[in-house]
Amino acid sequence: MNTSTSPDPMLVTYDTEPAKYRHWKLLTDGGPVARLVLDIQEDGGIRPGYKLKLNSYDLGVDIELNDAAQRLRFEHPEVKCVVVTSAKPRMFCSGANIYMLGLSSHAWKVNFCKFTNETRNGLEDSSEHSGLKFLAALNGATAGGGYELALACDEIAMVDDRSTAVSLPEVPLLGVLPGTGGLTRLIDKRRMRRDLADVFCTMSEGVRAERAREWHLVDHIAKPQQFEDMIAACAAELARTSDRPGGQGVALTPLNRRIDEHGYHYTHVDVAIDGAARCATLTVTAPIGRQPDEIEEVVTQGARWWPLAMARELDDAILMLRTNHLDIGLWQIKTRGDLSAVLEADAMLAKFRDHWFVRETIGFLRRCLRRLDVSSRSLFAIIDEGSCFGGLFLELALAADRSFMLRLEDDFARAPRIALSEANFGQYPMNSGLSRLASRFAGETAPVEAARAAIGQPMDAARAEQLGLVTFTPDELDWDDELRLAIEERASLSPDALTGMEASLRFAGPETMDTRIFGRLTAWQNWIFQRPNAVGEKGALKVYGTGSKSAFDWNRV
Amino acid sequence: MNTSTSPDPMLVTYDTEPAKYRHWKLLTDGGPVARLVLDIQEDGGIRPGYKLKLNSYDLGVDIELNDAAQRLRFEHPEVKCVVVTSAKPRMFCSGANIYMLGLSSHAWKVNFCKFTNETRNGLEDSSEHSGLKFLAALNGATAGGGYELALACDEIAMVDDRSTAVSLPEVPLLGVLPGTGGLTRLIDKRRMRRDLADVFCTMSEGVRAERAREWHLVDHIAKPQQFEDMIAACAAELARTSDRPGGQGVALTPLNRRIDEHGYHYTHVDVAIDGAARCATLTVTAPIGRQPDEIEEVVTQGARWWPLAMARELDDAILMLRTNHLDIGLWQIKTRGDLSAVLEADAMLAKFRDHWFVRETIGFLRRCLRRLDVSSRSLFAIIDEGSCFGGLFLELALAADRSFMLRLEDDFARAPRIALSEANFGQYPMNSGLSRLASRFAGETAPVEAARAAIGQPMDAARAEQLGLVTFTPDELDWDDELRLAIEERASLSPDALTGMEASLRFAGPETMDTRIFGRLTAWQNWIFQRPNAVGEKGALKVYGTGSKSAFDWNRV
Repeated sequence: MNTSTSPDPMLVTYDTEPAKYRHWKLLTDGGPVARLVLDIQEDGGIRPGYKLKLNSYDLGVDIELNDAAQRLRFEHPEVKCVVVTSAKPRMFCSGANIYMLGLSSHAWKVNFCKFTNETRNGLEDSSEHSGLKFLAALNGATAGGGYELALACDEIAMVDDRSTAVSLPEVPLLGVLPGTGGLTRLIDKRRMRRDLADVFCTMSEGVRAERAREWHLVDHIAKPQQFEDMIAACAAELARTSDRPGGQGVALTPLNRRIDEHGYHYTHVDVAIDGAARCATLTVTAPIGRQPDEIEEVVTQGARWWPLAMARELDDAILMLRTNHLDIGLWQIKTRGDLSAVLEADAMLAKFRDHWFVRETIGFLRRCLRRLDVSSRSLFAIIDEGSCFGGLFLELALAADRSFMLRLEDDFARAPRIALSEANFGQYPMNSGLSRLASRFAGETAPVEAARAAIGQPMDAARAEQLGLVTFTPDELDWDDELRLAIEERASLSPDALTGMEASLRFAGPETMDTRIFGRLTAWQNWIFQRPNAVGEKGALKVYGTGSKSAFDWNRV
Repeated sequence: MNTSTSPDPMLVTYDTEPAKYRHWKLLTDGGPVARLVLDIQEDGGIRPGYKLKLNSYDLGVDIELNDAAQRLRFEHPEVKCVVVTSAKPRMFCSGANIYMLGLSSHAWKVNFCKFTNETRNGLEDSSEHSGLKFLAALNGATAGGGYELALACDEIAMVDDRSTAVSLPEVPLLGVLPGTGGLTRLIDKRRMRRDLADVFCTMSEGVRAERAREWHLVDHIAKPQQFEDMIAACAAELARTSDRPGGQGVALTPLNRRIDEHGYHYTHVDVAIDGAARCATLTVTAPIGRQPDEIEEVVTQGARWWPLAMARELDDAILMLRTNHLDIGLWQIKTRGDLSAVLEADAMLAKFRDHWFVRETIGFLRRCLRRLDVSSRSLFAIIDEGSCFGGLFLELALAADRSFMLRLEDDFARAPRIALSEANFGQYPMNSGLSRLASRFAGETAPVEAARAAIGQPMDAARAEQLGLVTFTPDELDWDDELRLAIEERASLSPDALTGMEASLRFAGPETMDTRIFGRLTAWQNWIFQRPNAVGEKGALKVYGTGSKSAFDWNRV
């Protein structure tokens, strides 16, 4: 057993629940407007060594935010608008804690930013697809990541009290970028004029109410005495645009997860970690036994309903692996079970896609698959005997960098089969807006149409290869050697080069705000996070708050 | 005088001419097909310390390629198709020289890649806009940047001799990316399936003829004895798609450039470098005196025609500053002369845009302005007394990160004016395909339409501000202080954070292959170029060819 999976007191877990929150309060009253209130506990950092002053956050705060968003989606179908605000006087949020950033490794910073971006993109995803609207109520100073959280909301309301300002002081104060979508959302979402964005991003003091509205930085302003009324009115207005139905929610019961020296074990997902090979195997299992065929039964099953239960486990496994096992660079993805059971689950998801609970489940799956797309790990899909890569599960293979499918031409019974369903043609778009199939074929329509004609047909390796759906199809004689060599070869390559290559090849074609955040913005931030001007002994991030001035190498690169 | 402008024996210059080429031969015979033949002199590196073996290149080789492309555009309107091939037996090109990369500073590598990308994008630009087609004739081994050069051509033909392969071995051999557009063009231009692209980019040995064609890596293959016939046929076919007119070309006479301790001085462009302030001032001058108003006179003026002469000088100044003055982080852009003279030049360019020479001049201006967009320097436009930011020159202000326009309300005669022309509405699109005006307003159409209604009107600061065309409009009392403070503040900020910020804010909206190359791909490559896994003592780039194995930090970030 490699150190990678040793029980680690520093192990980061992402599952929590409102009763355990230390930094957020989720306030619901059965009505259409909920409040998500930030009240960060200074001594509640997820790592030792820094205090979360001025409502500044770290990964632990964002883990709670992510959980709160999930609760709102599933447990509160009556909520149409969420007011995101702060319990601290004259302080909304000062962004990511700078001392935490100064103390963190490069890898920790990058992983933290990725998760934070996913959570914020997730708010926008829920607004777009599920009618869950977000209103940022800036009741005090809003800086850096605090303002980036506001940018991820549908609308931003700000108190006009002559002192409160919004700011992105990363460039002038810290020598890094507003890397949680700030630069992208200013121009692409808020449509701020780019010279004004340049001015704004180089002003440490930020911009107060009137000018903030004029510059498209906020939507609504009000004096302190009118602020709460304005928030109520704006929230009611946003709620009116929502089609969330109300009614009884579905409780997100605790995950069934066991951690041992081999990896992580859930009901439908298993993660086996091979530290020596720097490789993990994620095995996802099809539904077993009779599944609900009526929507009432689906809702009654709730968090036990296979699509949601599986998605929650897979999502947790991805997050755990990403954070706690940096050196496990290759994830093999396997499936087990009955192909027709997966396709039946697909059919249920499609049939009831307009029911709020199914819609939320599809949303969870969509975001979970996107998390896989942006994970900085090599992904190999292993389509072996006993596998069931159909429909939803085929998305896992299409998300992979390459796939291996066992060719067993003379053994019809044992030969693995894959199958396409409607779910592969747009149900789970990537961040680019394309289906994984369209992205795979880089915009060529003929192979996508050929695939569409094969919907529902179980395909063996020869047929799958013919349609371009799998990469390699070794026969039984070659299978073990070919797989072993491919895994060893992948594990021998530079992890940084692989990360850059995968991030480039996974997203063919159009770019969207989300892909710009994960591509352009994140890559520049990662570069800056490596540069001595940010993280060197005299770098801006290191000397912040010490009273020393940072010393820059002035060369432009 | 700061060291930045000391006469430097290592000063890099970009102007050359075919008689001085050491690495390329440009062969024209008056017919529609030219040959551009790579025959790299091992001892001809632009820097000491490495040999350019196996037809591998460095910046000096690409400076010649860039010059050859310009000669083809202007001096050879009869050329419709350029066959890019090699004079070495069984070796087309092995890409960027690895020992050069290993010896180079981070900044040198990044600048080298940027120029190389601009040259390759420029080939595609000429194919799209000027009918100058490129055929890569791979007569031997083609690796890395050699294959990326082929990818920038319209079509790729390859010899099928059982040994010649195309490859992108950067990831497996060097731990870096194919960073000259390779990853992007595989999926976005060649529409290669992304799992096959993953396989291809991790294979150091590459792919031979049959499979290369099957995988979309090349278009045509032929056995050695049929190879020349196939090339001739493919070139003739490509030439048939060209609308280049033939006839007499325009000689690109040597630039009139003087270098002294103050900076660079040309006929229409002046560069003053203030090393202490880490700031340069580029002043571009309007046409003076009578300008041609008939196309015959334009052609007779040739390289002396103001739009082309000015563009060549500005392009050279940008390249010189970028390479030789890394610490000059801020470029102030000024104009001098008569606003109406600039607008008249615009009108001539528009009137004769379909004439081949004017079309090539517009192309030069388009690529020169794009070079400004992707330069990693802060750009301030200074719209002061005596300036003439109209039409084409207004593009310089719109390319800037911010602009300052002097407000002189009581002095009609002295007040600077700007003016819009048709040239600001699509004549010079950015890499994104958007005009700088559309990009400035981040997709909002109303301000673009308001600007369109003002075409041809000279505008003072108040009017320019009202239309959102300038950032700041200080009056005479505040002008000096406000400018000084802005320049000092900009010069105090982290150069890396500014580079990342500017690269993000300059490109609102859609991404294209070019912006993906300069955004996503370049940023990832820059990150990798900083990582110990590439450039550390045991990094892959450092140990290549030493017989040692690279030692990686396996953590995925």
